[in-house]
Amino acid sequence: MPLSKIYKLHISPDREYVKRMRILLGFVPGNLSLYKMAFRHKSMAVVLKNGTKSSNERLEFLGDAVLGSVIAEILFKLYPYKGEGFLTELRSKIVRRANLNQLGRKLGFHELIDFDSKTVNMTTKQSSLLGDAFEALIGAIYLDKGYDFTKSFITNRIIKPHIDIHTLEVTETNFKSKLIEWCQSQSKEITFEPTANAEGDSAKLFSIQVFIGGEAMASATDYSKKNAEKLAAEKTCDMLGI
Amino acid sequence: MPLSKIYKLHISPDREYVKRMRILLGFVPGNLSLYKMAFRHKSMAVVLKNGTKSSNERLEFLGDAVLGSVIAEILFKLYPYKGEGFLTELRSKIVRRANLNQLGRKLGFHELIDFDSKTVNMTTKQSSLLGDAFEALIGAIYLDKGYDFTKSFITNRIIKPHIDIHTLEVTETNFKSKLIEWCQSQSKEITFEPTANAEGDSAKLFSIQVFIGGEAMASATDYSKKNAEKLAAEKTCDMLGI
Repeated sequence: MPLSKIYKLHISPDREYVKRMRILLGFVPGNLSLYKMAFRHKSMAVVLKNGTKSSNERLEFLGDAVLGSVIAEILFKLYPYKGEGFLTELRSKIVRRANLNQLGRKLGFHELIDFDSKTVNMTTKQSSLLGDAFEALIGAIYLDKGYDFTKSFITNRIIKPHIDIHTLEVTETNFKSKLIEWCQSQSKEITFEPTANAEGDSAKLFSIQVFIGGEAMASATDYSKKNAEKLAAEKTCDMLGI
Repeated sequence: MPLSKIYKLHISPDREYVKRMRILLGFVPGNLSLYKMAFRHKSMAVVLKNGTKSSNERLEFLGDAVLGSVIAEILFKLYPYKGEGFLTELRSKIVRRANLNQLGRKLGFHELIDFDSKTVNMTTKQSSLLGDAFEALIGAIYLDKGYDFTKSFITNRIIKPHIDIHTLEVTETNFKSKLIEWCQSQSKEITFEPTANAEGDSAKLFSIQVFIGGEAMASATDYSKKNAEKLAAEKTCDMLGI
């Protein structure tokens, strides 16, 4: 870094912010406004001159895509003899909302995210604000430093220290049990209903709709009823961030 | 390219293949085996020493992710004032299976894909083999040349000449009509069924399941019944590659 830039940082009000980011990320951020944007929840959106609101949602869209691509490559190379079904399932285990929320909390994002505490609740263990900010941060790093840099950030600062891929590979989360337990803890009734015609003789596929407290949640379709229930439960867990 | 490499290509049996690829791609491929793999349908899978089968399915997994990431960035930059909902929808319009199939046909993939014509039908206008091979090709280019190269390939050789983003932006495909027409042409009965409880008073969400000839197809859930039907129709169109 040129001396003039170091000097500017030392006299800038951003000095503390840069220091904090450097500790979090392991590198000195270039375009600070991107990182500030990544931690701005929509409840604190800034209104731009043309009237649109600016928060971390657009960066989240970009970061989600970049993260998906980087994880795809990591798994592609880590498992050279596994088929695409295996790779797809393992990737979705890694990037599950609940995992990204946990990761965000581990990284201390709850102290960094700029949100309106009057309207938003971040006290629940699994606030989706954390996972959203994580994806937005990946988007910010990508725009600031490029793809290869982001790939090594994800590999070395996220995957290696925080995610045990081989354990995830063999761990089969029972989403149906998880969801039922959650509903019990919330005193809510849960049912798994087959859809209207799916039980007829002609149907080869089973469709299952989850209802919690009478409210329709996710649905899923599969050739086995058990699998359709499992998939619908998983989608519902994702919707609820549990 | 060093002279020795040019010489090697000229005496190699791959000479014609390289020439063909150079015309298709606009660049000289490096690792030819990747490109050959991208055009190998699973009906012609090669059995590896360890017993696993090798076709373009793994490259398709990787290419799908890289394509999603590149398109995300293109839209992010093209529409600086649009929200993530708009960006997500527009991206899904661009990467719809039917679009990628058309693109594959335009690029002449039907003459390049190595498939078993006894078991696979590529005569239908929208064979999904084409879109699959397109995604696999993106995976091959990424592994051969890196992310930035792949990004400019997608931007300059795919998006600019073949995809009119602004038209897609304003075009609202009526998937329900499209699906109904297709069913009529196939003499198949189609119904849109609300799921078991979704019509109850307590349900805030509507869930719709599509059935074609009594067989359950895709389902979708939304706050409006019309939208749930539209989404379920779109998912079914994607499943059928229409």
